[in-house]
Order: sequence, then structure tokens, then C-alpha cells
Amino acid sequence: MTVHPQKVRVLESYLAGSWRQGKAEGKPLLDAATGAPVAAIDASGLDLAEALAWGRDTGGKALRKMTYHERALMLKTLAQALTEQKEIFYQESFATGATRKDSWIDIEGGIGTMFAYSSKARREMPNTRVFVEGAVEPLSRDNSFSGQHVLTPLRGIAVHINAFNFPCWGMLEKIAPALIAGVPCLVKPASQTAYLTELMVRHILATGILPEGSLQLLCGSAGDLIDHVTGQDVVTFTGSAATGQMLRRNPAIVQNSVRFSMEADSLNAAVLGPDVSPEDPEFDLFIKEVAREMTVKAGQKCTAIRRVIVPRKLSDAVADALGKRLGKAVIGDPRDEAVSMGPLASAGQREEVLARVSDLKVEAEIVSDLAGSSPATGAFAAPVLLHCANPMSAEAVHSVEAFGPVATLMPYDELEEAVELTHKGKGSLVASLFTNDPLVAEEAVLGMAPFHGRVMIGNRKSAKSSTGHGSPLPMLVHGGPGRAGGGEELGGLRSVKHYMQRTAVQGTPALLGAVTGRWISGAPGQEDSRHPFRKSLADLKIGDQLNTGAREVSLEDIEHFAKFTGDTFYAHMDEAAAIRNPFFEGRVAHGYLIVSFAAGLFVDPDEGPVLANYGVDNLRFMTPVNAGDALKVQLTAKEISPRISADYGEVRWDCLVTNQNDEAVAQYDVLTLVAKEWPMSA
Amino acid sequence: MTVHPQKVRVLESYLAGSWRQGKAEGKPLLDAATGAPVAAIDASGLDLAEALAWGRDTGGKALRKMTYHERALMLKTLAQALTEQKEIFYQESFATGATRKDSWIDIEGGIGTMFAYSSKARREMPNTRVFVEGAVEPLSRDNSFSGQHVLTPLRGIAVHINAFNFPCWGMLEKIAPALIAGVPCLVKPASQTAYLTELMVRHILATGILPEGSLQLLCGSAGDLIDHVTGQDVVTFTGSAATGQMLRRNPAIVQNSVRFSMEADSLNAAVLGPDVSPEDPEFDLFIKEVAREMTVKAGQKCTAIRRVIVPRKLSDAVADALGKRLGKAVIGDPRDEAVSMGPLASAGQREEVLARVSDLKVEAEIVSDLAGSSPATGAFAAPVLLHCANPMSAEAVHSVEAFGPVATLMPYDELEEAVELTHKGKGSLVASLFTNDPLVAEEAVLGMAPFHGRVMIGNRKSAKSSTGHGSPLPMLVHGGPGRAGGGEELGGLRSVKHYMQRTAVQGTPALLGAVTGRWISGAPGQEDSRHPFRKSLADLKIGDQLNTGAREVSLEDIEHFAKFTGDTFYAHMDEAAAIRNPFFEGRVAHGYLIVSFAAGLFVDPDEGPVLANYGVDNLRFMTPVNAGDALKVQLTAKEISPRISADYGEVRWDCLVTNQNDEAVAQYDVLTLVAKEWPMSA
Repeated sequence: MTVHPQKVRVLESYLAGSWRQGKAEGKPLLDAATGAPVAAIDASGLDLAEALAWGRDTGGKALRKMTYHERALMLKTLAQALTEQKEIFYQESFATGATRKDSWIDIEGGIGTMFAYSSKARREMPNTRVFVEGAVEPLSRDNSFSGQHVLTPLRGIAVHINAFNFPCWGMLEKIAPALIAGVPCLVKPASQTAYLTELMVRHILATGILPEGSLQLLCGSAGDLIDHVTGQDVVTFTGSAATGQMLRRNPAIVQNSVRFSMEADSLNAAVLGPDVSPEDPEFDLFIKEVAREMTVKAGQKCTAIRRVIVPRKLSDAVADALGKRLGKAVIGDPRDEAVSMGPLASAGQREEVLARVSDLKVEAEIVSDLAGSSPATGAFAAPVLLHCANPMSAEAVHSVEAFGPVATLMPYDELEEAVELTHKGKGSLVASLFTNDPLVAEEAVLGMAPFHGRVMIGNRKSAKSSTGHGSPLPMLVHGGPGRAGGGEELGGLRSVKHYMQRTAVQGTPALLGAVTGRWISGAPGQEDSRHPFRKSLADLKIGDQLNTGAREVSLEDIEHFAKFTGDTFYAHMDEAAAIRNPFFEGRVAHGYLIVSFAAGLFVDPDEGPVLANYGVDNLRFMTPVNAGDALKVQLTAKEISPRISADYGEVRWDCLVTNQNDEAVAQYDVLTLVAKEWPMSA
Repeated sequence: MTVHPQKVRVLESYLAGSWRQGKAEGKPLLDAATGAPVAAIDASGLDLAEALAWGRDTGGKALRKMTYHERALMLKTLAQALTEQKEIFYQESFATGATRKDSWIDIEGGIGTMFAYSSKARREMPNTRVFVEGAVEPLSRDNSFSGQHVLTPLRGIAVHINAFNFPCWGMLEKIAPALIAGVPCLVKPASQTAYLTELMVRHILATGILPEGSLQLLCGSAGDLIDHVTGQDVVTFTGSAATGQMLRRNPAIVQNSVRFSMEADSLNAAVLGPDVSPEDPEFDLFIKEVAREMTVKAGQKCTAIRRVIVPRKLSDAVADALGKRLGKAVIGDPRDEAVSMGPLASAGQREEVLARVSDLKVEAEIVSDLAGSSPATGAFAAPVLLHCANPMSAEAVHSVEAFGPVATLMPYDELEEAVELTHKGKGSLVASLFTNDPLVAEEAVLGMAPFHGRVMIGNRKSAKSSTGHGSPLPMLVHGGPGRAGGGEELGGLRSVKHYMQRTAVQGTPALLGAVTGRWISGAPGQEDSRHPFRKSLADLKIGDQLNTGAREVSLEDIEHFAKFTGDTFYAHMDEAAAIRNPFFEGRVAHGYLIVSFAAGLFVDPDEGPVLANYGVDNLRFMTPVNAGDALKVQLTAKEISPRISADYGEVRWDCLVTNQNDEAVAQYDVLTLVAKEWPMSA
């Protein structure tokens, strides 16, 4: 057992409601640049089954009491609090080897992901506890039996086993969607940089913003953690393929069909399009992007470019330009502001990277080794660019991930071959393509897509605005098939759904409405003496309905509307032409006339709680309207979503326009803003 | 080795382009009712790695050349051909022990699923080769960098390992979404009833409707099949948990992160609501449903009711009524039209079911055993109803699946307890709830949802139209978490997506448009001397654009529109009230006036290829319009989807209305039908 000075901070785990230490003194964690001890870590003897059970119960119950918007606002408040404290994290982050720029991705990128999830959830989810997905599926002709998919939070806990390279972002990008879904989390950071995660969790818990039980932290070995997961839990893993595969085979995961999402090795490619010459802006953009991806975080990113695929005739030009660019990197202690590239996370990582470079050298030769530019001690490693002359028949360059500033240049002859080379990675997180030719973009992107979770196209027009090859974004999926682990994270609401169970509910529209909190076509409505536009959110109920009188549409109306609006389309104005049209039997009313007359029928004109019509969704014209037809409207309150931080909310109305034969003429959702109380308290 | 008469049919496998026999003579398969040999099965010595590679290459390439609509129409043609030949399958199906009614689910239910997928794909997918999912995600403020998710067919093969109980449906419900996605299939039916699957595959291939390589069949043991799967393949499994877990641990699946979907043991529950008394229609519906689920297919359905959860006070009444109802079952050879319940699939299955009943008897007592009503020989088994007095503390009744006509009655006191009992199944395919009380429906369904893939509510109003507890439907998801395997099948397009890779593509709107085949906001448009409404689909291109002149909106226009339509809402008519409104600074134009004037600006009136405006999507009003504002429109062809079987297609136009300050006033999609050629050939 290693003995270390008393003053070294001993990391603790927050489990089942309290901060706890392992039984042993702990393994020392060293500063990546200086080698000085930063902290000690140990988790032996901790009761992990108890922690999982406590999280499911205490955390799950508390989170499920909140609505999606409440949980989203909670994340925003938390992200604000962390932003205020960010300098504390930046200072601690130097020990990991990260420059301030590197840390920005980890710290502010992570906090930004929480902000993004908060706002996306409030925009795209209702302020409810159950998420209704997709359209109502009619299951009977008489509309007495229908189906509707709903998503409800799993009753388990999300266990996130993270990698050492992003101690903050790795945690935050995973707990954000889980917490919005309503599922508590237990985070296990990789030991090497766990001190930064632990520091952030301390600050998170100290804010008191998260309900008790919704976030736990395990510092140290995972021990028997995974042996206790159930079919309602979710396990995510980011790290090495070997560890990930061991987890995937864990009996508890296999037997309980536990949702398991993995992000592991990925030999990401950057492809220079065959249309690009060294004079084109895309050439420079490509060089800059490859060099950046090799040096940011000292190449320790799952999304870093490992394979540099270029037209054979440009292979030397690319090697030269890349070598020059990489030579500008200033390697050293990241606390020094002049330094652009820090050390690897540990001396062990450096050994590992050098060993993998040896593997690569079996098939590729080093064309640019900047060893002279780097301190030869500790965890430092200089960028290494290799060249593989025959990548189509090579194996190692497509399968060995050197997790550092290492990439291999590979020439291709035809674009098809470049695409095939990307496939040889057997599934990657991301590929980028630099081209200014739409045909090259179409062929290459669609060719690469089945093997990649993300494909970025770089060109001159997006040079300044591009977020770059290496950056996963909250609104886009992150993850890749095959070798990359087969997981899918982020992607906006997509990852929130990973923490919920999708259930198809079947029943009468009325009972389905009771379950989903929405009025469903076919369910009865309630009509009373008050027009529904006279009701504020305090009074309005799902299913409140208005059935209007009829209004006949005359030929004069159609002609007048045409003249007034300028829409003199032949189907409205020319009887013979309308008859020749395959869908009409004569002149028809404008679709916009139908919806305008419908509004005239259903609107209550007096000042009141209905504040504005902000849009219309899914408008379909179902039966043509000819002169002499009489229209009437059934307007029903379908969905009510009060805003948390405003004195109004959204009301979605089902609007059904029928004719004198009760045929549906048009159906659509009318979107309005309605005051919570009337008169408004303001 | 078993020696059997020459006349017994030896099943063959269709692999790598030809029908093949195993090296051995084969295991005999016996008629479930008579015990007579039906066929022999063996797959020894077949080259399965070659078959997988051939399917990926030959089948994959052929399918990917087609569009989604072409593949969907192919399925419809195939379903029509199978419908014509259905009597052949009905005759063969008797040997499996299925009555004609049982076979209807398997044969016509399976064919119906193909019809449903064909029509759903043509309605909900575009007629393209790439599926665009979700909204464009703007990634820069100046609209020069955006993201869009696309789905492309996996480059692998779908391996479907099916159960013995639905030899037709089990195959068809899985190949339908895979083929629509563009992924070839290899089907391995369970041996016991493989003769029916083999017969149907022979008929499918004989039609010549499917491209070569898109469907293969393996009759017999899976051998080393799964050892050869890659990260682009999909493996689905329906059957016992033990076999499924073995597959899930297979090194090829684990190492290549192969998509693996499993549907295994499921202790499905039916709950009688606390509001129901024996006089209510829901009581009878409940009894009928439980009895039906116990006897259809002799209880050999993954979705059959195994746990009958009833209010304690009604426990005896339910037992009595169920016993009587079950007593009406006529058990015998399914070829006899008077028979309502056939044998189990084999004598081995009967042994298995009896052994499981013994397991259940540790915790439950038999209350209704109709052994006297059943032949005591071969594969026949009579319905068995058990009663478990203390289900909250029991284990076996929630975990032991007796895959036959067996169910256990369990009493509950409070509704919450009934919900908790359903959870004790640790994840099931389906639960049903019989209630006529909306509050009971809300509490119970939302409580059960996280543990179930489907929940059916039964009541008097859906008595006639309900599709029932046991029927998976093509438009609703089928699968359950935890013990049920964690898989998800069907659910409309959801399962089509299981065979595609989701990729986030980033780039300038113009390049994204080249990849997706859609015009994306921010991309340049093309304008020429012809109005886009003058172009048929033969001429119209994505990005064709019209920029109109401006039209001023006057106060007279607003007042006139109000009077003409009847929409005299205060925000349009009353200056003081409009100012009091939190969103307006004075009287505003109607939203419907804006879209009507916009149409007046963009419509070309003369008879031509634009045939009809069939709807509007995603209309949002973004900036209020006051009198004096001048509106103009940018209309751009966004998506073109020609129909295969009509002389027109859908064109989706992006319509952006701006004011004199170039602020966006409204944005929406205008949906039109446009002729393929003009003048139309008809």
C-alpha cells in the first residue's frame, strides 16, 4: 500500500446521502505535468447496492414529482451556479494536463450542454409528467379504439461510467438528459482525473438545487456496482473497448436486459475531397483541422482525427503542411499561458500511446515526429504523424487507437476508395469531409453515413462558423456503430428518451385522454354556457369544446376572397379548368378561405384570456368545398401547457371543419397563448 | 441417427442463391395432434459465413438501389401474392396444432403486417433513398452552418431467429421493416414448426418479387451463424431467455456492438379495476379476455395473460366465472371444426408446461383444472387456473412462464398494490386493465407503463372494436423491458429505423441540401424566368425559388378581413385592448390574413402543373403585422416526392413571409400536389 503525506486530499464518494471514504488509504493521483500528488482515491468497502437502491427510491421519487419543465429549469439554475464558480474548476483542471483552452471544452462545454438541454426540453416537451410521442393511431373504424405511444421515466437509476479525458463534460452531458427524463444518476469517473469530477459534484450538491438522491458519485473502483443493476436501470460507459465489453457481458446486464450504451475505440477519419487543390481554402482548413484535432487535449479525445485520408497526388503536400503546422505546437506545463499543448493525463498513458505507435509502425512509417519539441519526461508526448502507403490492405491503421497526438496519413485514388477506407474503421464516432463540391458531398457523406454517428462537411463558407470535427453538440447525436461501441448520446430529446420507457397505450379515446392528459379525436367534449375563449388556464379543461353554427360559402365569397387576397388560382376561378383538374368537380373555395371563415366561426371577439394565435400545425384539406357548401367548426381544447416562468401558457386546440354532410373538410391544430388568470394579475 | 421413411419431406435452407440440404438425414418433426412425421430438419455442414456475406453483398446492393416507396410497393405486391395462396399455408398449419382461428393470426396477421408496413412507409416516408429525421438544427447565428439527422440503410444483414409459435407472422413482422429499410434478411425459424416457414419462403421466392439475396432461410441449428455477424448487422431473437442470453453474450455480438433485439419470457398481467363489480360489462369482458388468452394457440403466445390480478373481494367470483368459461373449450385435433383449442406444439412442450405448473404449485393452488376435457395423450394439455393467496411475497408466480394454457389468479386490496404486482414481473410485453373509470385508468396505466411495452385498457365502449390484450399491431411497439428481453419491434417507422444508422450531418445549408435532397433554410435558391408553379416535376428542381414583390397591409384590409370572415378578435379591432395585450403594440393583422395575402403574392393563377394545395405544416407567426407593414414572400421548392403509382407527386414549399424590415413575419411549409408532366398525359 502506498503511503502518502497527510496533506494529500483523499477523494470521497457521495453515496446514499453522505460523503464516504474507502477503507484503504488510496492510490495517489499525480499531476500530469509536474508529477506531484494531487489526491488519493479508494472505494473499497463501500456499499454500492445500498447506493443504487437509495438513488432509485429517494432520487427517483423526488424527480418524478416534478414536470419536464421543472426539471429543465432546475438544470438551468444549476448551470448558472456552476458558471459562477467556473474558475475553481479551471484551476483544478490544470493538474489533468489540460490547457485553459482544453478545459473550456470540458468545463464550459459541459455547462453549456446543460443550458442547451434545459432550453430544448422546455421548447420541445410539454410541461407535464408524461411525454406523448407521435400521432394517435386509430385502431377501429368507428373511432372507439385507438393507440398512443407515451414515454414515462424508468423507475431505476442511471449509472454513468466515464472516461478520464472529460471529467466535467463527461458527467454533465450524461446527467442532463437523465435528469430531464426524471431518472436519478450515479456517476463513476475514471480515477486518473476524478478529483475534478469530485470537486464539481461537491459544488453541485452544495447548491441544494438537485433533490436529494438524484446525484451520487463513486470515486474509485466500480467493485460490484454493476452486479446490482436491474431492468429499470441504464448503464452508460465511455472508455476502452476491453472494459466496455466486460461490462456488456456482465450477468446482471445480460440477464436483466439492462439498457447499455457504450462509447469506445474510434478511428475517426478526415477526408480531403478529390476536388480540392492546395490553392483552395478547403486545403488550409483541412490542415488546420487535422493539426487541431491532433493537439487539442493532446489528442486525448474520442472524436480526434486518427486517419487522414487524402488524394494520392496531395499526400506529400499534406504531410509537409501538417508537419509545419504541428511544429508550431508549444508543449509544456499547461499553467504556462504560452503552452498550446499539455502532457497526456499520466505517464502510464504515455507508455500506452508509445506502445500503440509501435503497433502502427508495422504498417506505416513516421513522417513527422516532433519529439524534439516536447519535454522527454513524465507524461509528455509530441505529435506523431505516420504514413501508410497501402491502406486498403492494412489492418492496424484502421483498428489501433493511439489515444494521444497521433494520426496516420492514407492516400486514395478514387472517392469510392476514400469512402471504403472510412468503413475499414468498422464504425466510428465521426468523420469529416473537406470539399466545396455538392456532388462530392452527396456521394461521400451518404457513403460514409452507415458507419458513422456524425459526419461534418467543412468548406470555405462555414470556415468561421463551423463547430469543428471534434465537437459533439447537445442537439446532434454522439456515438457510432460497431467498433465505436454502438451507443448513442445527446441528439436533443433522443437521449432524454433513452431514460424513459416507450409504451403503446390502447383504449377508447376518452380513456386514452385520461392517461395522456390530451384530448384525443373521438373522445367526447364538454360544452357549457361559456365560450372556451372566455376561460383562463385556471378554468379551461382538456376537452372543453365549442360547436359553431354553419356558414354557407357562396360563389361570391370565393370570387371576393380571390380578388381581395390576389389569389386567383384557376381552381377557384375557372370552372372548366377546375373540372379538368383530377381532384375537383368544379370551382373550389381557397384553403385559406376555409381556415379564415373557420376562425370567423370559432373566435370570441371580446378582450379576454386568449392572448394570441401563434401558429397552426398539421393543416390538411380533406374534402373540396364548392359554392353552396355550409361549413361548421368543432373546436376542442387538446393540450394545455402552462409556462413556469410566465403568466400564460400554450393551449393547442383541435379544429375540425365539416360541411353540411358532416364530411371533414379540414383538420388542424390551432396554437394559442392563454393567460393563467383573467384579468391578468400584472 | 433416426431413420425415417423416404416419403417424409426433408426441409431445405435457401442460402447464397440455392436450396441446400444438411449433411445428416435430419431430425423428424411430428404433427402436434397425430404424432405423424411431417418433415425432417438438418443444417449440418452448411456454410453460414458465405450466406451472410452473399446476403450483405447481393441482397444489400439490390435493395439499396430502390427507394423507400419502391420497397414498400414490393411488399404490397408480395402480400397480395401470399394472400392468394393462403389456403396452402392454412392446410400446412394444422400440423403445428393450430386451429384455423389460431392460424389466422399467424398467416393473415403476418400478411396484414406487410400490407400495413407498405402503406405506412408510403404515407410517412418520402420516395427517396435517404430518410431525413427531425428538424434542421441551426449551429451558427449567420445560418452558414447547420445540422440535420439522416438515416441510411445499414450495410449488413438482418438475422432473425424466431420462435416456434408463429412460423409465418414471426418471419413477416420482422422482414417487413427490414426490407423497407433496405436491409436483406436471413430467417432462422424454430425447428419444431419450420416446415410452415419453409413452405412460405418457397412461395415468396417463387414469386420473384424480392430481389435476389434479400431473403435467405436457414432450417435447422444455427451452428456458427452468429459467430460471423458484424457491426453493420442486426440480430433479433424471439424465444427462451436462456438461449437469448447466450446469444447476447456471443463474442461477435459483444465485440462488434451488434444491434441485438430480444423478446423472451414475459409474465403478462391482466388487471380488473377496483371500480368493476360482477354486474358491470367490464367484468364479463375481463373473463372473456382471460379465457381467450389462455386458450388461443393453447396459450402458446408471448403476449398471453399469465397473471390475473383482481380485487380480493371478487377473487372467488372471477375464479368461478373463469372456470365455467374455460370449461367450454373443446380440445382436440385442430382439423376438426368443432375444436376450439388444439394441442401444444409438441409432446416435449407439454412436458415442459407440466413441469412449470409444478413450479407454480409451490406458491399457488390449482383452482380449475380441466384435465378431463382433454385427450391425455401426445401434446394435448388442458387449461389450468391457479390461485396465489399472497402474491406480494411470492416469486415463482411472477417469474415462471408456463408456455401453455396456464394462468395464476392473484388478489389485491388497493390499486397501488395491483400496479406493484405487475412490476413484480420485472418487465413484460403487455398488461391489460379493465375499467370504466378514467381516474383508475390514469393511475394504473401510468403506474404500469415503465414496466411494459404495451398497455391495453378494456371497457364497454371498446368491447366490439378492441383488438385485444394479446395482439401486437404493426403501428404499435411490441416488446418489453427487463425479463421480456428489452427489445422493441413494430411500432410503425420506429422498427424501420432499427435497420438504419442515424447520422448527424453538419455543414453549410447548401451542402446539407446536396446530401439530404431537401432545400434547407439558409441555402441559396435558384430563380429563373419561369414561375415555379409553371414547372411540372419533370422540370422542377429542389431550391427553385420565387421572390415576390411587396404588398402593404392597410387598416382597411384588416377591418375588411374581419368583417368578411367574421373574425373580429379584439387584437385586430380594438387599439386599446391590443395595447393592453402583452404581445402587441397596437392592432395587428390576422394570422389568416397574412397567409391569405402571402398566397395572393406567390400563386401563379393560370392552369398548370400545380394541381392542389393539400395542407400546411408548422405555421408560426413570428412578428406581429401592423397596418402599414409591407409583406413579401420567398417561396422555395423544399422537397419533391413523386408517387410511383400516380402521374403526380407531393411538393413541399418553404414559405417565408417577411416585412419591410426583412423581419420574418411567418414561416411554414405549403404542401401541394404537382403533375409529373404538363400537360398531363392522361
